[in-house]
Amino acid sequence: MMKKRNLRLTVEYDGTPFYGWQIQKNQKTVQGEIQKAVEKIIGKRVVIAGAGRTDAGVHALGQVANFHTTSKLSCRKWVLALNSHLPEEISILEVEEVPLEFHSQFDAHEKTYRYSILNRPARSAVRNNFTHLVKPPLDVKLMAQGAHHLVGTHDYRSFGSDMSKKKKTVRTIRTFDVRKVDDEIHFTVTGDGFLYNQVRAMVGSLLLVGSGSQTPAWIRKVLGAKDRQKAGPNVHARGLMLVEVLYPVPGKS
Amino acid sequence: MMKKRNLRLTVEYDGTPFYGWQIQKNQKTVQGEIQKAVEKIIGKRVVIAGAGRTDAGVHALGQVANFHTTSKLSCRKWVLALNSHLPEEISILEVEEVPLEFHSQFDAHEKTYRYSILNRPARSAVRNNFTHLVKPPLDVKLMAQGAHHLVGTHDYRSFGSDMSKKKKTVRTIRTFDVRKVDDEIHFTVTGDGFLYNQVRAMVGSLLLVGSGSQTPAWIRKVLGAKDRQKAGPNVHARGLMLVEVLYPVPGKS
Repeated sequence: MMKKRNLRLTVEYDGTPFYGWQIQKNQKTVQGEIQKAVEKIIGKRVVIAGAGRTDAGVHALGQVANFHTTSKLSCRKWVLALNSHLPEEISILEVEEVPLEFHSQFDAHEKTYRYSILNRPARSAVRNNFTHLVKPPLDVKLMAQGAHHLVGTHDYRSFGSDMSKKKKTVRTIRTFDVRKVDDEIHFTVTGDGFLYNQVRAMVGSLLLVGSGSQTPAWIRKVLGAKDRQKAGPNVHARGLMLVEVLYPVPGKS
Repeated sequence: MMKKRNLRLTVEYDGTPFYGWQIQKNQKTVQGEIQKAVEKIIGKRVVIAGAGRTDAGVHALGQVANFHTTSKLSCRKWVLALNSHLPEEISILEVEEVPLEFHSQFDAHEKTYRYSILNRPARSAVRNNFTHLVKPPLDVKLMAQGAHHLVGTHDYRSFGSDMSKKKKTVRTIRTFDVRKVDDEIHFTVTGDGFLYNQVRAMVGSLLLVGSGSQTPAWIRKVLGAKDRQKAGPNVHARGLMLVEVLYPVPGKS
């Protein structure tokens, strides 16, 4: 009998040319491209489970996915074989063999996203797909104060899209850092999970604070309202990056 | 009579989709696209002079160009009008009115280029167009030692392509910094001018030092040989960025 293995992939991608992570009929998606590459290598169709379903135009430096296979190919050879079959906008950084029960989505402990705003008068030619341009100067200090209100365990319903009433909307944000890096402003947020579009709605709301339209305390009011209508608009997908997915270290809690 | 003005442009571009800076028949070039945009705005054909003729695939954060016009449009409006007519891979960062005799190429005092190597086992999906991948670990300290031999006023004939015997090949390199930044290695070089393909040949030679095939002192030997056959190969265009062009401050020498 052939031994079953569970392989965990760390994946970087430029989301620009894809219709998001999740496989869809007649659309080019990251999951779809990886599944096609696996099929080319072992001649069998597999289902790849991803830690987070990034939307169209959203990027990843460290998306995590896993799939089961009986292939005996070494992890190092899987990296080379996958990359040789994938478009250049997707790169497999690492393949590791993990316990059979590991599931990239259900076992994810923490995720870090970064949203990048380009804050200057003219658009960038070289960072256009990875930053969202805001021309008027933004107040980073005020936005950092606003972000502070979002840290902790809260019901984030005000920042979630397509939320049914029944859906659980309590999550924990561990850190939310707002920082100026040259002409960019980086919003880096780590939490145990995020509602659909939550990061983009939080950043969209903080931009209203940074431009002076709202105060930092308004963010707390929006959070308390539990009403999506109260928050700012979702910012564009292109500035969003899934930076890292963390899993509990075995033996620790 | 209409007043003639000389306008200086600071231009950022992603060189990936262009056949270099210089206008060519039936090829998409940066100069060509900017000239088309100017023609759309003022209805007249102009010639844009650029400070450096970057090759196909080479990028710029701060290319400088200038052209003469009798248009009365303000500099601020020129920025907006040009950007609205240019493809997103080209961005005009600034337009300034300069003395009529200013020439972006002939008056350039110093240029800074940066070459970026991605030094890790797997290619990058998001930095692919702006870095050149080298998988085996490179020794940054040895490459910095090698680069040090290239600083000063020298005959750089060993690092120039398509050099006729008569061509002047003495230039001055003021600084040549080699530095590791996360998983990238940045070669940043400032000089009063560079021979055709000089930066790419210097970096290609330094990579032979970083991989252990050659010693840092070998760079000095190559420089002394004044023979292109002695140097390493040109590295790929995609890692090269024209960072900045400096002009003398009026009244200083």
